Amino acid sequence: MTYCVGIQLNEGMILASDSRTNAGVDQVGSYPKMFTFVWKEERQFVLLSSGNLATTQGVVHRLFLDSENPSCETSLRTVTDMHAAADYVGVVSTEVQKRADSRQDPQVRFEATFILAGQIGSARHAMFLIYPEGNHIAPSPYHPFLQIGETKYGKPILDRIVHADMSMDDATRCVLVSLDSTMRSNLTVGPPIDLLRIYRDRIDGGIRARLGQDDPYLLSLCKHWHRGLERIFHGLPPFNWERVKEQP
Amino acid sequence: MTYCVGIQLNEGMILASDSRTNAGVDQVGSYPKMFTFVWKEERQFVLLSSGNLATTQGVVHRLFLDSENPSCETSLRTVTDMHAAADYVGVVSTEVQKRADSRQDPQVRFEATFILAGQIGSARHAMFLIYPEGNHIAPSPYHPFLQIGETKYGKPILDRIVHADMSMDDATRCVLVSLDSTMRSNLTVGPPIDLLRIYRDRIDGGIRARLGQDDPYLLSLCKHWHRGLERIFHGLPPFNWERVKEQP
Repeated sequence: MTYCVGIQLNEGMILASDSRTNAGVDQVGSYPKMFTFVWKEERQFVLLSSGNLATTQGVVHRLFLDSENPSCETSLRTVTDMHAAADYVGVVSTEVQKRADSRQDPQVRFEATFILAGQIGSARHAMFLIYPEGNHIAPSPYHPFLQIGETKYGKPILDRIVHADMSMDDATRCVLVSLDSTMRSNLTVGPPIDLLRIYRDRIDGGIRARLGQDDPYLLSLCKHWHRGLERIFHGLPPFNWERVKEQP
Repeated sequence: MTYCVGIQLNEGMILASDSRTNAGVDQVGSYPKMFTFVWKEERQFVLLSSGNLATTQGVVHRLFLDSENPSCETSLRTVTDMHAAADYVGVVSTEVQKRADSRQDPQVRFEATFILAGQIGSARHAMFLIYPEGNHIAPSPYHPFLQIGETKYGKPILDRIVHADMSMDDATRCVLVSLDSTMRSNLTVGPPIDLLRIYRDRIDGGIRARLGQDDPYLLSLCKHWHRGLERIFHGLPPFNWERVKEQP
Protein backbone atom coordinates (compact mmCIF):
# COMPACT_ATOMS: atom_id res chain seq x y z
CA MET A 1 0.00 0.00 0.00
CA THR A 2 0.99 3.65 -0.03
CA TYR A 3 0.30 6.93 1.67
CA CYS A 4 0.88 10.24 -0.13
CA VAL A 5 -0.40 13.66 0.88
CA GLY A 6 -0.20 17.16 -0.55
CA ILE A 7 -1.17 20.46 1.09
CA GLN A 8 -1.88 23.48 -1.11
CA LEU A 9 -1.29 26.72 0.77
CA ASN A 10 -1.47 30.31 -0.33
CA GLU A 11 2.29 30.43 0.17
CA GLY A 12 3.10 27.25 -1.77
CA MET A 13 2.81 23.49 -1.50
CA ILE A 14 4.13 20.72 0.76
CA LEU A 15 4.10 17.16 -0.55
CA ALA A 16 5.08 13.88 1.06
CA SER A 17 5.08 10.20 0.20
CA ASP A 18 6.08 6.95 1.86
CA SER A 19 8.19 4.37 -0.02
CA ARG A 20 6.81 0.95 0.83
CA THR A 21 5.38 -1.33 -1.84
CA ASN A 22 3.96 -4.77 -1.34
CA ALA A 23 2.50 -7.49 -3.48
CA GLY A 24 1.64 -9.93 -0.74
CA VAL A 25 3.43 -9.95 2.60
CA ASP A 26 6.48 -11.76 1.23
CA GLN A 27 7.10 -9.30 -1.56
CA VAL A 28 7.76 -6.02 0.17
CA GLY A 29 9.90 -3.38 -1.49
CA SER A 30 10.95 0.22 -1.24
CA TYR A 31 10.33 2.47 -4.24
CA PRO A 32 10.10 6.24 -4.52
CA LYS A 33 6.56 7.47 -5.20
CA MET A 34 7.47 11.11 -5.77
CA PHE A 35 8.63 12.32 -9.19
CA THR A 36 9.53 15.86 -10.25
CA PHE A 37 9.54 17.41 -13.72
CA VAL A 38 11.22 20.82 -13.72
CA TRP A 39 11.92 23.41 -16.42
CA LYS A 40 13.50 26.13 -14.29
CA GLU A 41 11.80 29.54 -14.32
CA GLU A 42 9.20 28.05 -16.72
CA ARG A 43 7.18 25.22 -15.25
CA GLN A 44 7.39 22.50 -12.62
CA PHE A 45 5.37 19.44 -11.66
CA VAL A 46 5.43 16.89 -8.87
CA LEU A 47 3.69 13.56 -9.25
CA LEU A 48 2.83 11.35 -6.26
CA SER A 49 1.70 7.84 -7.14
CA SER A 50 -0.27 5.01 -5.55
CA GLY A 51 -1.69 1.76 -6.87
CA ASN A 52 -0.27 -0.89 -9.16
CA LEU A 53 3.53 -0.41 -9.32
CA ALA A 54 3.83 -1.52 -12.95
CA THR A 55 1.17 1.03 -13.92
CA THR A 56 2.73 3.90 -11.94
CA GLN A 57 6.21 3.14 -13.31
CA GLY A 58 4.77 2.90 -16.84
CA VAL A 59 3.02 6.26 -16.44
CA VAL A 60 6.12 8.02 -15.06
CA HIS A 61 8.28 6.58 -17.84
CA ARG A 62 5.81 7.75 -20.49
CA LEU A 63 5.62 11.27 -18.93
CA PHE A 64 9.44 11.56 -19.11
CA LEU A 65 9.60 10.16 -22.67
CA ASP A 66 6.88 12.53 -23.92
CA SER A 67 8.55 15.52 -22.25
CA GLU A 68 11.85 14.79 -23.96
CA ASN A 69 10.34 14.12 -27.37
CA PRO A 70 10.22 17.43 -29.32
CA SER A 71 7.67 16.00 -31.75
CA CYS A 72 5.24 15.02 -29.00
CA GLU A 73 2.33 17.48 -29.16
CA THR A 74 0.96 16.98 -25.65
CA SER A 75 3.34 16.53 -22.74
CA LEU A 76 4.14 18.16 -19.42
CA ARG A 77 6.50 20.39 -21.42
CA THR A 78 3.71 21.66 -23.72
CA VAL A 79 0.44 21.76 -21.71
CA THR A 80 -0.77 25.31 -21.21
CA ASP A 81 -2.33 25.05 -17.76
CA MET A 82 -2.44 22.76 -14.72
CA HIS A 83 -5.92 21.48 -15.58
CA ALA A 84 -4.67 20.35 -18.99
CA ALA A 85 -1.67 18.74 -17.29
CA ALA A 86 -4.01 16.71 -15.06
CA ASP A 87 -6.10 15.72 -18.12
CA TYR A 88 -2.94 14.55 -19.87
CA VAL A 89 -1.72 12.46 -16.91
CA GLY A 90 -5.23 10.98 -16.67
CA VAL A 91 -5.12 9.94 -20.34
CA VAL A 92 -1.66 8.38 -20.00
CA SER A 93 -2.75 6.52 -16.85
CA THR A 94 -5.87 5.01 -18.46
CA GLU A 95 -3.83 4.00 -21.53
CA VAL A 96 -1.20 2.22 -19.45
CA GLN A 97 -3.92 0.45 -17.42
CA LYS A 98 -5.78 -0.64 -20.56
CA ARG A 99 -2.64 -2.15 -22.08
CA ALA A 100 -2.20 -4.37 -19.01
CA ASP A 101 -5.93 -5.14 -18.68
CA SER A 102 -6.16 -6.40 -22.27
CA ARG A 103 -3.47 -8.99 -21.68
CA GLN A 104 -4.45 -10.33 -18.32
CA ASP A 105 -7.02 -11.86 -16.03
CA PRO A 106 -9.99 -9.46 -15.65
CA GLN A 107 -9.94 -10.18 -11.90
CA VAL A 108 -6.55 -8.50 -11.48
CA ARG A 109 -6.64 -4.71 -11.15
CA PHE A 110 -4.02 -2.42 -12.61
CA GLU A 111 -5.42 0.79 -11.20
CA ALA A 112 -3.32 3.75 -10.15
CA THR A 113 -4.16 7.05 -8.50
CA PHE A 114 -2.00 10.17 -8.60
CA ILE A 115 -1.57 13.58 -7.05
CA LEU A 116 -0.21 16.10 -9.55
CA ALA A 117 0.98 19.45 -8.21
CA GLY A 118 2.75 22.24 -10.01
CA GLN A 119 2.91 25.68 -11.51
CA ILE A 120 3.12 26.85 -15.12
CA GLY A 121 4.60 30.31 -15.66
CA SER A 122 2.93 33.01 -13.64
CA ALA A 123 -0.38 31.14 -13.29
CA ARG A 124 -1.39 30.11 -9.79
CA HIS A 125 0.12 26.89 -8.43
CA ALA A 126 -2.40 24.03 -8.35
CA MET A 127 -2.89 20.45 -7.25
CA PHE A 128 -5.13 17.63 -8.52
CA LEU A 129 -6.02 14.12 -7.44
CA ILE A 130 -6.24 11.98 -10.59
CA TYR A 131 -8.48 8.92 -10.29
CA PRO A 132 -7.81 5.60 -12.07
CA GLU A 133 -10.53 6.58 -14.57
CA GLY A 134 -8.45 9.62 -15.58
CA ASN A 135 -10.78 12.29 -14.19
CA HIS A 136 -9.59 14.54 -11.39
CA ILE A 137 -10.45 16.89 -8.54
CA ALA A 138 -8.74 19.88 -6.91
CA PRO A 139 -8.62 20.19 -3.10
CA SER A 140 -11.40 21.95 -1.21
CA PRO A 141 -10.76 25.56 -0.17
CA TYR A 142 -11.93 24.52 3.32
CA HIS A 143 -9.63 21.49 3.50
CA PRO A 144 -6.82 22.33 1.09
CA PHE A 145 -5.18 18.91 1.05
CA LEU A 146 -5.30 15.76 -1.06
CA GLN A 147 -4.47 12.21 -0.01
CA ILE A 148 -4.02 8.95 -1.93
CA GLY A 149 -3.48 5.35 -0.82
CA GLU A 150 -4.05 4.40 2.82
CA THR A 151 -5.64 7.75 3.70
CA LYS A 152 -7.83 7.23 6.76
CA TYR A 153 -5.35 6.83 9.64
CA GLY A 154 -3.66 10.14 8.85
CA LYS A 155 -6.77 12.16 8.01
CA PRO A 156 -7.94 13.26 11.50
CA ILE A 157 -4.85 15.40 12.16
CA LEU A 158 -5.15 17.06 8.73
CA ASP A 159 -8.86 17.73 9.34
CA ARG A 160 -7.98 19.41 12.62
CA ILE A 161 -4.95 21.47 11.67
CA VAL A 162 -4.74 22.28 7.95
CA HIS A 163 -5.96 25.58 6.49
CA ALA A 164 -4.81 27.50 3.43
CA ASP A 165 -3.18 30.30 5.45
CA MET A 166 -0.99 28.08 7.62
CA SER A 167 2.76 28.42 7.29
CA MET A 168 4.87 26.12 5.13
CA ASP A 169 6.68 24.99 8.28
CA ASP A 170 3.43 24.04 10.04
CA ALA A 171 2.30 22.18 6.93
CA THR A 172 5.61 20.28 6.88
CA ARG A 173 5.19 19.12 10.47
CA CYS A 174 1.54 18.29 9.81
CA VAL A 175 2.24 15.93 6.87
CA LEU A 176 4.97 14.23 8.92
CA VAL A 177 2.62 13.67 11.86
CA SER A 178 -0.02 12.36 9.44
CA LEU A 179 2.53 9.94 7.96
CA ASP A 180 3.71 8.87 11.42
CA SER A 181 0.14 8.02 12.53
CA THR A 182 -0.35 6.00 9.33
CA MET A 183 2.95 4.11 9.62
CA ARG A 184 2.22 3.19 13.24
CA SER A 185 -1.19 1.72 12.40
CA ASN A 186 -0.50 0.14 9.00
CA LEU A 187 2.59 -1.88 8.16
CA THR A 188 2.10 -1.48 4.40
CA VAL A 189 3.06 2.21 4.70
CA GLY A 190 6.73 2.73 5.58
CA PRO A 191 9.83 4.91 5.40
CA PRO A 192 11.83 6.48 3.89
CA ILE A 193 9.59 9.52 3.55
CA ASP A 194 10.07 11.82 0.57
CA LEU A 195 9.26 15.41 1.40
CA LEU A 196 9.09 18.39 -0.98
CA ARG A 197 8.60 22.10 -0.39
CA ILE A 198 7.65 24.32 -3.32
CA TYR A 199 7.11 28.05 -2.89
CA ARG A 200 4.56 29.82 -5.06
CA ASP A 201 6.18 31.68 -7.98
CA ARG A 202 9.59 30.08 -7.36
CA ILE A 203 9.98 27.68 -10.24
CA ASP A 204 13.19 26.05 -9.07
CA GLY A 205 12.11 22.47 -8.36
CA GLY A 206 11.68 23.25 -4.67
CA ILE A 207 13.67 21.60 -1.91
CA ARG A 208 13.44 17.87 -1.46
CA ALA A 209 14.34 15.79 1.57
CA ARG A 210 14.39 12.07 2.23
CA LEU A 211 13.85 10.95 5.83
CA GLY A 212 14.84 7.39 6.66
CA GLN A 213 13.49 5.30 9.53
CA ASP A 214 16.32 6.44 11.81
CA ASP A 215 16.36 10.08 10.75
CA PRO A 216 17.05 12.03 13.99
CA TYR A 217 14.48 14.72 13.17
CA LEU A 218 11.77 12.17 12.39
CA LEU A 219 12.53 10.24 15.59
CA SER A 220 12.41 13.45 17.62
CA LEU A 221 9.14 14.62 16.02
CA CYS A 222 7.47 11.24 16.56
CA LYS A 223 8.65 11.08 20.18
CA HIS A 224 7.43 14.64 20.91
CA TRP A 225 4.07 13.88 19.30
CA HIS A 226 3.64 10.56 21.08
CA ARG A 227 4.58 11.91 24.50
CA GLY A 228 2.45 14.99 23.94
CA LEU A 229 -0.58 12.85 23.07
CA GLU A 230 -0.06 10.76 26.19
CA ARG A 231 0.21 13.93 28.27
CA ILE A 232 -3.00 15.45 26.88
CA PHE A 233 -4.73 12.11 27.17
CA HIS A 234 -3.94 11.81 30.86
CA GLY A 235 -5.08 15.41 31.41
CA LEU A 236 -8.52 14.85 29.85
CA PRO A 237 -11.51 15.31 32.17
CA PRO A 238 -12.58 11.92 33.59
CA PHE A 239 -16.01 10.58 32.70
CA ASN A 240 -18.20 10.50 35.78
CA TRP A 241 -19.75 7.03 35.67
CA GLU A 242 -21.24 7.51 39.11
CA ARG A 243 -23.59 10.19 37.79
CA VAL A 244 -24.97 7.88 35.13
CA LYS A 245 -28.13 6.05 36.06
CA GLU A 246 -28.07 2.37 35.28
CA GLN A 247 -30.28 1.56 32.33
CA PRO A 248 -31.91 -1.76 31.61
CA MET B 1 -21.57 3.21 8.29
CA THR B 2 -20.76 2.47 11.92
CA TYR B 3 -17.96 2.59 14.43
CA CYS B 4 -17.93 0.29 17.45
CA VAL B 5 -15.02 -0.48 19.74
CA GLY B 6 -14.43 -2.68 22.76
CA ILE B 7 -11.43 -2.75 25.12
CA GLN B 8 -10.80 -5.85 27.21
CA LEU B 9 -8.85 -5.01 30.36
CA ASN B 10 -7.78 -7.15 33.26
CA GLU B 11 -10.23 -5.14 35.37
CA GLY B 12 -13.20 -5.45 33.01
CA MET B 13 -14.44 -4.17 29.66
CA ILE B 14 -15.39 -0.82 28.11
CA LEU B 15 -17.57 -0.84 25.01
CA ALA B 16 -18.83 1.97 22.81
CA SER B 17 -20.86 2.39 19.64
CA ASP B 18 -22.09 5.23 17.48
CA SER B 19 -25.74 5.36 16.32
CA ARG B 20 -25.73 6.56 12.72
CA THR B 21 -27.08 4.38 9.93
CA ASN B 22 -27.25 5.24 6.28
CA ALA B 23 -28.48 3.63 3.10
CA GLY B 24 -27.43 6.36 0.71
CA VAL B 25 -26.99 9.96 1.77
CA ASP B 26 -30.73 10.68 1.78
CA GLN B 27 -31.60 7.82 4.09
CA VAL B 28 -29.75 8.55 7.28
CA GLY B 29 -31.08 7.25 10.57
CA SER B 30 -30.18 6.81 14.19
CA TYR B 31 -30.35 3.30 15.63
CA PRO B 32 -28.71 1.79 18.71
CA LYS B 33 -25.98 -0.69 17.86
CA MET B 34 -25.39 -1.92 21.41
CA PHE B 35 -27.54 -4.70 22.90
CA THR B 36 -27.26 -6.30 26.32
CA PHE B 37 -28.43 -9.72 27.50
CA VAL B 38 -28.21 -10.05 31.27
CA TRP B 39 -29.05 -12.83 33.72
CA LYS B 40 -27.92 -11.21 36.95
CA GLU B 41 -25.25 -13.04 38.94
CA GLU B 42 -25.26 -15.74 36.23
CA ARG B 43 -24.19 -14.47 32.83
CA GLN B 44 -24.12 -11.29 30.75
CA PHE B 45 -23.43 -10.41 27.11
CA VAL B 46 -23.07 -7.23 25.11
CA LEU B 47 -23.42 -7.26 21.34
CA LEU B 48 -22.15 -4.40 19.14
CA SER B 49 -23.27 -4.55 15.52
CA SER B 50 -22.18 -3.18 12.16
CA GLY B 51 -23.23 -3.89 8.59
CA ASN B 52 -26.61 -4.41 6.99
CA LEU B 53 -29.27 -3.05 9.38
CA ALA B 54 -31.90 -5.66 8.44
CA THR B 55 -29.37 -8.41 9.17
CA THR B 56 -28.25 -6.96 12.51
CA GLN B 57 -31.85 -6.39 13.63
CA GLY B 58 -32.73 -9.92 12.50
CA VAL B 59 -29.84 -11.37 14.47
CA VAL B 60 -30.63 -9.42 17.65
CA HIS B 61 -34.31 -10.39 17.44
CA ARG B 62 -33.38 -14.06 17.03
CA LEU B 63 -30.95 -13.92 19.98
CA PHE B 64 -33.71 -12.51 22.22
CA LEU B 65 -36.32 -15.02 20.97
CA ASP B 66 -33.97 -17.99 21.50
CA SER B 67 -33.06 -16.79 24.99
CA GLU B 68 -36.69 -16.60 26.03
CA ASN B 69 -37.64 -19.92 24.53
CA PRO B 70 -37.17 -22.65 27.19
CA SER B 71 -37.22 -25.39 24.54
CA CYS B 72 -34.39 -23.78 22.54
CA GLU B 73 -31.30 -25.92 23.09
CA THR B 74 -28.65 -23.39 22.10
CA SER B 75 -29.05 -19.76 23.10
CA LEU B 76 -27.17 -17.11 25.04
CA ARG B 77 -29.00 -18.48 28.11
CA THR B 78 -27.65 -22.03 27.61
CA VAL B 79 -24.15 -21.77 26.06
CA THR B 80 -21.48 -22.98 28.47
CA ASP B 81 -18.61 -20.63 27.58
CA MET B 82 -17.90 -17.39 25.70
CA HIS B 83 -16.35 -19.24 22.76
CA ALA B 84 -19.56 -21.22 22.30
CA ALA B 85 -21.54 -17.98 22.59
CA ALA B 86 -19.50 -16.48 19.71
CA ASP B 87 -20.01 -19.68 17.66
CA TYR B 88 -23.76 -19.42 18.24
CA VAL B 89 -23.98 -15.74 17.24
CA GLY B 90 -21.91 -16.59 14.14
CA VAL B 91 -24.36 -19.34 13.15
CA VAL B 92 -27.39 -17.07 13.66
CA SER B 93 -25.71 -14.31 11.64
CA THR B 94 -24.92 -16.54 8.64
CA GLU B 95 -28.46 -17.95 8.72
CA VAL B 96 -30.05 -14.48 8.68
CA GLN B 97 -27.74 -13.39 5.85
CA LYS B 98 -28.50 -16.53 3.81
CA ARG B 99 -32.24 -15.99 4.10
CA ALA B 100 -31.89 -12.52 2.58
CA ASP B 101 -29.32 -13.61 -0.02
CA SER B 102 -31.57 -16.37 -1.34
CA ARG B 103 -34.37 -13.94 -2.12
CA GLN B 104 -32.44 -11.07 -3.64
CA ASP B 105 -30.00 -9.76 -6.18
CA PRO B 106 -26.59 -11.46 -5.68
CA GLN B 107 -24.95 -8.04 -6.11
CA VAL B 108 -26.49 -6.74 -2.89
CA ARG B 109 -24.62 -7.65 0.30
CA PHE B 110 -26.34 -8.46 3.55
CA GLU B 111 -23.20 -8.88 5.61
CA ALA B 112 -22.93 -8.01 9.30
CA THR B 113 -20.02 -8.00 11.73
CA PHE B 114 -20.34 -8.11 15.52
CA ILE B 115 -18.39 -7.67 18.71
CA LEU B 116 -19.63 -10.00 21.44
CA ALA B 117 -18.36 -9.37 24.97
CA GLY B 118 -19.43 -10.99 28.20
CA GLN B 119 -18.88 -13.26 31.13
CA ILE B 120 -20.44 -16.61 32.08
CA GLY B 121 -20.34 -17.50 35.78
CA SER B 122 -16.89 -17.35 37.29
CA ALA B 123 -15.08 -17.90 33.97
CA ARG B 124 -12.94 -15.05 32.73
CA HIS B 125 -14.68 -12.24 30.85
CA ALA B 126 -14.02 -12.37 27.09
CA MET B 127 -14.59 -10.55 23.84
CA PHE B 128 -14.84 -11.72 20.21
CA LEU B 129 -15.10 -10.10 16.80
CA ILE B 130 -17.52 -12.19 14.73
CA TYR B 131 -17.02 -11.95 10.96
CA PRO B 132 -19.85 -12.14 8.40
CA GLU B 133 -18.78 -15.74 7.72
CA GLY B 134 -19.53 -16.62 11.35
CA ASN B 135 -15.95 -17.29 12.45
CA HIS B 136 -14.38 -15.11 15.12
CA ILE B 137 -11.24 -13.80 16.78
CA ALA B 138 -10.36 -12.62 20.29
CA PRO B 139 -8.30 -9.43 20.78
CA SER B 140 -4.52 -9.57 20.90
CA PRO B 141 -2.90 -9.53 24.37
CA TYR B 142 -0.63 -6.75 23.02
CA HIS B 143 -3.51 -4.66 21.64
CA PRO B 144 -6.48 -5.76 23.73
CA PHE B 145 -9.17 -4.03 21.70
CA LEU B 146 -11.54 -4.87 18.86
CA GLN B 147 -13.12 -2.52 16.33
CA ILE B 148 -15.84 -2.95 13.71
CA GLY B 149 -17.18 -0.66 10.97
CA GLU B 150 -15.24 2.47 10.03
CA THR B 151 -12.18 1.49 12.08
CA LYS B 152 -9.18 3.30 10.63
CA TYR B 153 -9.66 6.93 11.72
CA GLY B 154 -9.90 5.96 15.38
CA LYS B 155 -7.19 3.27 15.43
CA PRO B 156 -4.03 5.40 15.89
CA ILE B 157 -5.04 6.62 19.36
CA LEU B 158 -5.91 3.07 20.46
CA ASP B 159 -2.58 1.78 19.10
CA ARG B 160 -0.78 4.42 21.14
CA ILE B 161 -2.63 4.28 24.45
CA VAL B 162 -4.39 0.96 25.08
CA HIS B 163 -2.87 -1.82 27.17
CA ALA B 164 -4.52 -4.52 29.28
CA ASP B 165 -3.46 -2.98 32.60
CA MET B 166 -4.86 0.50 31.97
CA SER B 167 -7.65 1.72 34.23
CA MET B 168 -11.31 1.50 33.27
CA ASP B 169 -11.45 5.32 33.41
CA ASP B 170 -8.55 5.70 30.97
CA ALA B 171 -10.15 3.16 28.65
CA THR B 172 -13.42 5.12 28.79
CA ARG B 173 -11.71 8.35 27.73
CA CYS B 174 -9.74 6.48 25.09
CA VAL B 175 -12.79 5.03 23.32
CA LEU B 176 -14.45 8.46 23.40
CA VAL B 177 -11.40 10.13 21.82
CA SER B 178 -11.30 7.35 19.22
CA LEU B 179 -14.99 7.93 18.44
CA ASP B 180 -14.48 11.71 18.31
CA SER B 181 -11.64 11.38 15.75
CA THR B 182 -13.83 9.09 13.64
CA MET B 183 -16.90 11.35 13.79
CA ARG B 184 -14.85 14.39 12.77
CA SER B 185 -13.43 12.67 9.69
CA ASN B 186 -16.40 10.59 8.56
CA LEU B 187 -19.98 11.81 8.44
CA THR B 188 -21.43 8.30 8.34
CA VAL B 189 -20.41 7.83 11.99
CA GLY B 190 -22.40 9.97 14.40
CA PRO B 191 -23.86 10.48 17.88
CA PRO B 192 -25.43 9.58 20.20
CA ILE B 193 -22.69 7.38 21.58
CA ASP B 194 -23.63 4.34 23.66
CA LEU B 195 -21.08 3.57 26.33
CA LEU B 196 -20.94 0.57 28.64
CA ARG B 197 -18.70 -0.30 31.57
CA ILE B 198 -18.60 -3.90 32.83
CA TYR B 199 -16.39 -4.91 35.73
CA ARG B 200 -14.92 -8.40 35.82
CA ASP B 201 -16.87 -10.75 38.11
CA ARG B 202 -19.72 -8.25 38.59
CA ILE B 203 -22.55 -9.78 36.61
CA ASP B 204 -24.98 -6.90 36.97
CA GLY B 205 -25.32 -5.65 33.37
CA GLY B 206 -22.73 -2.95 33.97
CA ILE B 207 -23.43 0.76 33.74
CA ARG B 208 -24.61 2.19 30.47
CA ALA B 209 -24.55 5.81 29.32
CA ARG B 210 -25.82 7.52 26.20
CA LEU B 211 -24.00 10.70 25.15
CA GLY B 212 -25.81 12.94 22.67
CA GLN B 213 -24.19 15.43 20.33
CA ASP B 214 -24.56 18.22 22.89
CA ASP B 215 -23.60 16.22 25.95
CA PRO B 216 -21.58 18.63 28.12
CA TYR B 217 -18.97 16.01 29.02
CA LEU B 218 -18.48 14.97 25.39
CA LEU B 219 -18.16 18.60 24.29
CA SER B 220 -15.64 19.27 27.06
CA LEU B 221 -13.59 16.15 26.26
CA CYS B 222 -13.51 16.94 22.54
CA LYS B 223 -12.55 20.57 23.20
CA HIS B 224 -9.75 19.54 25.58
CA TRP B 225 -8.45 16.98 23.12
CA HIS B 226 -8.62 19.34 20.14
CA ARG B 227 -6.93 22.22 21.96
CA GLY B 228 -4.34 19.86 23.43
CA LEU B 229 -3.49 18.51 19.96
CA GLU B 230 -3.12 22.04 18.60
CA ARG B 231 -0.88 22.92 21.53
CA ILE B 232 1.41 19.89 21.06
CA PHE B 233 1.40 20.45 17.32
CA HIS B 234 2.63 24.01 17.66
CA GLY B 235 5.27 22.87 20.14
CA LEU B 236 6.76 20.25 17.77
CA PRO B 237 10.37 20.81 16.68
CA PRO B 238 10.44 22.62 13.30
CA PHE B 239 11.91 20.82 10.30
CA ASN B 240 15.09 22.54 9.22
CA TRP B 241 14.69 22.87 5.46
CA GLU B 242 17.79 25.02 5.26
CA ARG B 243 19.98 22.06 6.22
CA VAL B 244 18.60 19.95 3.39
CA LYS B 245 20.60 20.01 0.20
CA GLU B 246 18.56 20.53 -2.91
CA GLN B 247 18.31 17.34 -4.94
CA PRO B 248 17.67 17.09 -8.65
